Parts: sequence; structure tokens; C-alpha cells
Amino acid sequence: MLSKAKIKLIKSLEMKKFRQSEGLFVAEGPKVVGNLLPHFHCRLLVATDKWLFDNPKPKADEIIVATDEELQKASFLKSPQRVLALFETPAPSTIETADSSLVLALDDIQDPGNLGTIIRIADWFGVRQIVCSQGTVDAFSPKVVQATMGAIARVGIHYTKLDSWIESLAKTIPVYGTFLNGKNIYDEPLSENGVIVMGNEGKGISPAVEKYISSRLFIPNYPKGVETSESLNVAVATAITCAEFRRRIK
Amino acid sequence: MLSKAKIKLIKSLEMKKFRQSEGLFVAEGPKVVGNLLPHFHCRLLVATDKWLFDNPKPKADEIIVATDEELQKASFLKSPQRVLALFETPAPSTIETADSSLVLALDDIQDPGNLGTIIRIADWFGVRQIVCSQGTVDAFSPKVVQATMGAIARVGIHYTKLDSWIESLAKTIPVYGTFLNGKNIYDEPLSENGVIVMGNEGKGISPAVEKYISSRLFIPNYPKGVETSESLNVAVATAITCAEFRRRIK
Repeated sequence: MLSKAKIKLIKSLEMKKFRQSEGLFVAEGPKVVGNLLPHFHCRLLVATDKWLFDNPKPKADEIIVATDEELQKASFLKSPQRVLALFETPAPSTIETADSSLVLALDDIQDPGNLGTIIRIADWFGVRQIVCSQGTVDAFSPKVVQATMGAIARVGIHYTKLDSWIESLAKTIPVYGTFLNGKNIYDEPLSENGVIVMGNEGKGISPAVEKYISSRLFIPNYPKGVETSESLNVAVATAITCAEFRRRIK
Repeated sequence: MLSKAKIKLIKSLEMKKFRQSEGLFVAEGPKVVGNLLPHFHCRLLVATDKWLFDNPKPKADEIIVATDEELQKASFLKSPQRVLALFETPAPSTIETADSSLVLALDDIQDPGNLGTIIRIADWFGVRQIVCSQGTVDAFSPKVVQATMGAIARVGIHYTKLDSWIESLAKTIPVYGTFLNGKNIYDEPLSENGVIVMGNEGKGISPAVEKYISSRLFIPNYPKGVETSESLNVAVATAITCAEFRRRIK
């Protein structure tokens, strides 16, 4: 049975301060929990009989069998998803250099769905590290974790003072960013290593970071050459940019 | 002043049955409302003094000056956005043939954010029509309208029995779809006209539609050649696919 105290603990993890004080984050559903179980230490797993029958002996400190109704009370989703887990938040690790790989840098991404989708994109395109400004939404919020579909287990997420970090490496490796007045991405040289900066949903890349960008890219709209004041969603722009970097590699 | 009856009317439009019986939909915020005003008949516009000062004489049947607190009561957003408008839902129009243009077909897209993002992508890439299965989420729900950022004014959205519609044209024009076991999109011929089918978030393209697909595409992950059970978000896959179709056109 799922106690009221446990439900309260789970629900509290919607807030960053409780995620930090508890050192825990929530994941839900067979797909996401299944993806995370091999990678993170599971402190508590709440699941239906049926899920536990299909997934015998999951590795978790504590396992509670619950009904759909109990899961519903603890869930952040509209419909209960058979399994919910509390994982220990990984300790911050040092950022590896971007000398030989592509790294995504996020400058104040606000929307949890966008961040989750970007982490999923990074996973698909083999980008193993994302460096976030301190104003970027927390990657371990329930909405972000769900939107990653479990990809958060395979991509390292770092929070740092983004302009200082980019300044420290802009002299030695290329720094890319997307802009409405950038150059057609399909005509620009793209390297196999470097940093790709994506900006805030409303404001784009901040001036403090923009000054270190060595290559300003633009994803052409269609018909080509028609000027536009519109833009693409930031996760969509991230996807098209990452796809083009990887397409070039033969 | 914004009356309780008006707030009730606005709030009721979250539900499809009331959008249908009233023939109205809601949009919020300067960007989205500004994009829609030239294209849809505005029945009611609720705005702050400040917005009306900056946007004199907006074309609307009725204009109500409201405080931020009043807007908050009517709003579907977390923070009030200075302006909210009720527009008349456009009458369904006939689908133009896809003989000379690209058309997106959506097979039971469920998430409002995904549909809104896809409409925004279509607008960016000059796809002027989207044909949706009857199981696809309603394009005029508040969440979809907001996620389009106003692009819904420039893209025609049709709901129909998708398999019958595709059957009727599959003999004469190419029908594309994305699959995890499709062929590398960068190696496949892509035409300037045709239908691009995108499937449901969990189930992909339904068998009834899949049988009419003439070209099965795959967006390669990285490192190349590594098999994966993961996938891309459907809006992200739509974006990369549309970008690639347009990149080919010189």
C-alpha cells in the first residue's frame, strides 16, 4: 500500500527545492522507468501487480505494490502509468572538453517540454553532453524527465555560468549558434567537434554569450529568400541543426 | 470590465464541444493574437489599457478593457499576457490536391503541443495544408493555438478519414512516411510534391494508412549504423523531414 507520507514525498518532488534537499527525482511509465533503472540508483519503486509480474526483481531499495488508484494519487500524469520510481539525482560531474566531440549549450531554455525534447534529440544524434546556463529549467523536473523518454540516462547535463565556460574555449574550438540573420546552414562549413548554442524561447541567445559565437547559422525557410519575422521552436531548431552536423559526416 | 459570463464563456472553450457549439476558439498574447487578427474574424478582444494604447483600433466586434487580474481569471496561461481574443473558427474548406505541392498528413497525433509545433513547422517550410485523421487532437484547442505561435492563420487544417483520402491519391502521387526500419532519408529520392505522413506518438503510422506509403524514410541516428529502439519526438521528425525535402530544392 502506498502511504500518505510516500505520496506527499513524491508530490513534493515537483519543486526544485525538495528535489535538491531529498536528492531525488521522479520518473513514470514503463518506457521511462525501464530506460532509467539500469543507470540511476532507484530509492523507491511503486508499481502495479501486473508491471511487477512482467518485470520481476527490479533493482530498487524499496518496492511497493500499488493499485491504479493509488498510483493516480501520486502521479504527475493525467492517466496512471503502472509504474513510478524515485531515483537518486546523479552528482554533478565535470564537463569534458569539446575538443573532439559536439556539445550542446543551452542559454536559458525555460520550457520543460523543450528541454526534455532537446535531451532526447542529443541522445539520438550522439551528443553526450549538454551544458546549461544557470537560468535554464532544471533537467530533473518531472516534466523534463518525462519528455526525455528516458534519454536523460544517456546524456550528461551540466549547469554552469555559460558565458564564462564558452569564453574559456572559444579561442580553440568553433562555437555555433542559430540566428534569423545567420548564414544558410547548408552552405556553411560544419566541424565534427565544437559547441552548438541554442537560445531562450523568447529572447534567443543572450549578448553575453553571443559575442563568443564564431559561426552564425540560419535554417532556411521556404520559399527560400523570403524574409520572415517568424521563427522555429527551439527544440525543432536544435533537431535540424544536429541532423545537419551529422549528415555531413561520411 | 470583464463580466463573469464572459469569463465563463472563454473558459468553456477549453472543451471541444463548446468550441463547436459556439464556433469560437481562444488565442492569447500579443504575438499570437497579433498574428491571427488579420486572418480570422475576432468576436471579442479583451486587453489591458497598455496593449490597446500600443495597438489602436484592433478589428473586433467587441473590445473590453481589462486589468491583469481580470485577464488572469480568463486565461489558460500561467501568467496573463495583456491580450486575449475569441475568433470565429473558419468553416471547413475542401482539400486541394497534392499534385504540385507538399502536404502533411497526421495519423492520430494526440499531444496538443506536438500538433501546434507541427503547424508552426509547416508554416516555416511553406507547407500550406495539413490533413488530419479524425482521431487527431483538435487544432483549435487553446494549447494547440498557443503552440503554433500564430502559424495556424497561414496553414489550412483539414480533418478527414485519412486512409480513404490517401487511398484516393496514392496511385498518382508519392506518399512518404518515417519508420525506424525505413531507408536513410539522405539517400532516397524526394519529390517536390506528395504527402508526408506522420504517425501517432506511441503507435506510429496505423496499418490502414501504412499500406499506401510508397517511400519509407528513416532519419539516421548517430553513430550511424547503430540499431536503436529509441525514436525521435514526432514534431522533431516532422521538422527534419520537411527541412530535408526543402534542402533538395535548388
